[in-house]
Amino acid sequence: MVSKVNIAELFGRFNEPWSPKVAGDINDMQFKMVKLRGEFVWHHHEREDELFLVVRGQLRLRFREGDVLLDPGEFIIVPHGVEHCPVAAEECEVILLEPRTTLNTGNVQNERTVAHPERLA
Amino acid sequence: MVSKVNIAELFGRFNEPWSPKVAGDINDMQFKMVKLRGEFVWHHHEREDELFLVVRGQLRLRFREGDVLLDPGEFIIVPHGVEHCPVAAEECEVILLEPRTTLNTGNVQNERTVAHPERLA
Repeated sequence: MVSKVNIAELFGRFNEPWSPKVAGDINDMQFKMVKLRGEFVWHHHEREDELFLVVRGQLRLRFREGDVLLDPGEFIIVPHGVEHCPVAAEECEVILLEPRTTLNTGNVQNERTVAHPERLA
Repeated sequence: MVSKVNIAELFGRFNEPWSPKVAGDINDMQFKMVKLRGEFVWHHHEREDELFLVVRGQLRLRFREGDVLLDPGEFIIVPHGVEHCPVAAEECEVILLEPRTTLNTGNVQNERTVAHPERLA
């Protein structure tokens, strides 16, 4: 039987920031959930587009051309190749939609790289 | 410059039910928005998985094994090949995430088939 997922319930299961969790697969794409606190790292993805949908809090996405502020119920699609840096002054909950091959730090490898994200569902 | 999208604002731009609108592309996947009222048609998709995320109202997804009721903030992924029939007793707003090749009526072609969905963004 196909079962449903409650997004708020899944966000309640983890606390650590910058660690995307997988909540589902749609063909080659993954539905991920992440909590953001503070500033991430500038990076881009060679091949993968990346959708950020804000569920709670406010997300600042820095681009080389300027910042975009996202409130709950807003999303943005960052095309592959475009440098970006997510920043959250206060905790922010975000849904990510991106190909399964997407690494959270893109072309950068550092202590924040999560090569094998945990599954929630 | 990459620009953001406000989901409520886009839902305010159309009214007709069962006519998915495209709000963005993530590689081969599309972010669509649809309003549902009444009962759709039983169908399946040969190759495409399909995510339904409820934004407003309540969605009943009928499966051959039984129904699943989805409230706002809940989603379900219908794997390819699985027959389903969406039903909304009252108007319901839904986000769809599915490959660009997905036809709304799947293996069925009838008056509700939307071969070329309109773009909102």
